Amino acid sequence: MEELKNELISEAEQDITSQLQIEVSQVVQQLTEAEGEEQAEVFSEILNEAEAGTIAILLESLPLDERYERWQQVQPEERVDVLNLMRADPRLGILKKMPDEELDLLFSQLSPEDLIDWSDSLPDSITDRALAQMGERQRKHFELYDQYDENEIGRYADHQMLVLNPDSTVAQGQRFFRRIDLDCNDHLFLVDANDKYVGTVRRYDLFKADADSLLSALIWPDSRVISADSSLIESAETLEHSRELELPVVDDEGTLIGRMTLRTATALVREHYESQLMATAGMDEDDDLFAPIIVGARRRAVWLGINLLTAFLASATIGLFENVLSQVVALAVLMPIVASMGGIAGSQSLTLMIRGMAMGQISAGNVVSLLKNELGIGALNGLLWAIVIGLIAGWWFDDVIMGIIIGCAILINMAMAAIAGVMVPMILQKFNQDAALSGSVILTTVTDVVGFFTFLGLATILYL
Amino acid sequence: MEELKNELISEAEQDITSQLQIEVSQVVQQLTEAEGEEQAEVFSEILNEAEAGTIAILLESLPLDERYERWQQVQPEERVDVLNLMRADPRLGILKKMPDEELDLLFSQLSPEDLIDWSDSLPDSITDRALAQMGERQRKHFELYDQYDENEIGRYADHQMLVLNPDSTVAQGQRFFRRIDLDCNDHLFLVDANDKYVGTVRRYDLFKADADSLLSALIWPDSRVISADSSLIESAETLEHSRELELPVVDDEGTLIGRMTLRTATALVREHYESQLMATAGMDEDDDLFAPIIVGARRRAVWLGINLLTAFLASATIGLFENVLSQVVALAVLMPIVASMGGIAGSQSLTLMIRGMAMGQISAGNVVSLLKNELGIGALNGLLWAIVIGLIAGWWFDDVIMGIIIGCAILINMAMAAIAGVMVPMILQKFNQDAALSGSVILTTVTDVVGFFTFLGLATILYL
Repeated sequence: MEELKNELISEAEQDITSQLQIEVSQVVQQLTEAEGEEQAEVFSEILNEAEAGTIAILLESLPLDERYERWQQVQPEERVDVLNLMRADPRLGILKKMPDEELDLLFSQLSPEDLIDWSDSLPDSITDRALAQMGERQRKHFELYDQYDENEIGRYADHQMLVLNPDSTVAQGQRFFRRIDLDCNDHLFLVDANDKYVGTVRRYDLFKADADSLLSALIWPDSRVISADSSLIESAETLEHSRELELPVVDDEGTLIGRMTLRTATALVREHYESQLMATAGMDEDDDLFAPIIVGARRRAVWLGINLLTAFLASATIGLFENVLSQVVALAVLMPIVASMGGIAGSQSLTLMIRGMAMGQISAGNVVSLLKNELGIGALNGLLWAIVIGLIAGWWFDDVIMGIIIGCAILINMAMAAIAGVMVPMILQKFNQDAALSGSVILTTVTDVVGFFTFLGLATILYL
Repeated sequence: MEELKNELISEAEQDITSQLQIEVSQVVQQLTEAEGEEQAEVFSEILNEAEAGTIAILLESLPLDERYERWQQVQPEERVDVLNLMRADPRLGILKKMPDEELDLLFSQLSPEDLIDWSDSLPDSITDRALAQMGERQRKHFELYDQYDENEIGRYADHQMLVLNPDSTVAQGQRFFRRIDLDCNDHLFLVDANDKYVGTVRRYDLFKADADSLLSALIWPDSRVISADSSLIESAETLEHSRELELPVVDDEGTLIGRMTLRTATALVREHYESQLMATAGMDEDDDLFAPIIVGARRRAVWLGINLLTAFLASATIGLFENVLSQVVALAVLMPIVASMGGIAGSQSLTLMIRGMAMGQISAGNVVSLLKNELGIGALNGLLWAIVIGLIAGWWFDDVIMGIIIGCAILINMAMAAIAGVMVPMILQKFNQDAALSGSVILTTVTDVVGFFTFLGLATILYL
């Protein structure tokens, strides 16, 4: 017996080497540096070791042709998991390349929950093809979730959960936990005969209780409920703050429609911040790292076009002052400095606002205090840099008036940048626009126009 | 009996109204719109209902003076939890204002894990004061974690976990789960007599097994291990991909030093993206929404100063061409357009790179493919916008040569922007610099200098 035990332990110890953490960046390097046959071998080794999430990230890091070759090595039974964990664009790229019979096989393994998630970015023809592979009951489920729109948590609620009536016994509840192995499963949800949510029983309380007592006696008074029409990021925050692993999602009639898990919350937080980061450059979190050139160019062209309109506005402002520019060429040399300092100062205020908005920390109630604070910081930095830049410019062109003009323009533009940095996102929020997306374009337009106008306007007054 | 049951259910049903989700943005609005006495009342109501995480966010959304007044309403036993969930700067602000005796009471409730987390941004004097309130054993623990630096997961590993020897019985393991109520607890970790990690037993397997069998027989072969010197974001990803709730953290000798939970991973992901977002404007994720004006101004001044150097570089480039500028003033009017289009195109490539790097998807192996792809997109968009802008400029100033000059400059600058957008973050990564922080400044310098140089250089050749 003792011998067997030691053997088991030493076997387990040997196992640890194979259990070591797979660092994504290392396998990305191994895979991307290999080519052709060698890459196929490296990938098939990784397939044995890595989880679906790692495989999804790896596939995304390959150019389109290599990506599809490696995809064909993924076993049919793993394919749904891997696609679930990919971004929307790379997933769609793979689906479009797959032959019909493989696609039908894949769709036959798809749950209505998966399809809801995918359908946000699938063409209707592919969604319909997938629905055709599903049974009547699954299609009904799909339609049920499809009632909620893309920003409501009801759409993405997890429908696999432990549900019992309040008059079931503790023993029945314990049996559920012994039989069913769900991710992030810590609660049993109680519903009445009409599927209305009644309360939550914690596994911890359940396994300490007397087997014959009723579940209704174990309802945990502190548990929160997520309402199905809450926004994704609000629900993720509710779950994070609750310190629980899962929360029930109920519709406005109190019916339990699913649960939200901490796993989902983590994924939503990541997606939300990715979308904010990408939005600052006018892009989308679903964008493929290796988009086909035409597709990538077309998407980015829209943003460049919007930016061009604002750039022409700045040019038109300069155009008002051709007269003074033709006489004092130093103005043309210095004018980018005024615009640039305003732009940077404004983007600092704007970024602080965007971060605060992501956490729900900005409201009409504190905007005046924020404005005062940012204006104070802007004025202080404006004064500092007005003096520095004024001295340098005055010395460079040996012209005191030039130093005074640029100093005043810097001070005015940086104060204006602070005001715009706070007010632009507030106004955008009021109209339900994404401040991370349009904020920086509008802000830059303001700081460019104000910067050029004050600088060249002051010069016109003082030089002409 | 039946009556009692119904009563219990209807009580539970009434409870639901009080269990409803607290939406952070709504309570922020209620709180920030109230003033003085009224605010104190609103806050004390919220204190009864909301979790520590919500209270932390609420306090951060208040200006400094109001924040400290509301802080004094927080009960002593809740204070550690609330501070744990605040950002570093606001937390430090509160600690600095607290009188010594309150501070000592707070520190006496602090765990070594909490202090490690706080100490990253505390002045040494406060850390020492906190250590003085701790027992010998806790101080030893603190020093143990303090061996790992701020980017290693070993520093933040959770030391509360279920640990047994492999020759313990299933019954002993089950007793652990019944007695101890830990967050994200799903595993039992097995260590040998020297604290070396041997393996993981899942709760699910444990509660199905025979009470007399040994834990060593239940070791789960698929569990991963996180190594203590892994970076925070790599560990968070390993945990997310593993589909588990917790993973063991082991040092390089195989000793189990703690566990990492999905809760920690979620917080790390949020912090990582916040820091990336803030870095794009030269700021820090710990920054207070309401920093004291002097502190806020000083921090941002550094970034403005760096930006000023690059702006002067752009100015110096323009200065080389004073001659042509004084003769063709239209050049001064149009030149911001060239720089701006290059800057936007470059930031699109850069943002795609930063997102990829955050997920470990960029390596030396795929950089050539990325460069080809981005250059293709840049050239295509460059060509499109060169024609559009060339036509508009030619028509505006009634000058075909001007149209040709700006068209060529746009094409060259946008192609250059694509190259810089890919190469700048690669080079920064090579030298372990944060691409989100310094990437955009370097990129803008490149696109400004290249843009002005090609535009005004071509004009010098063609006009003079």
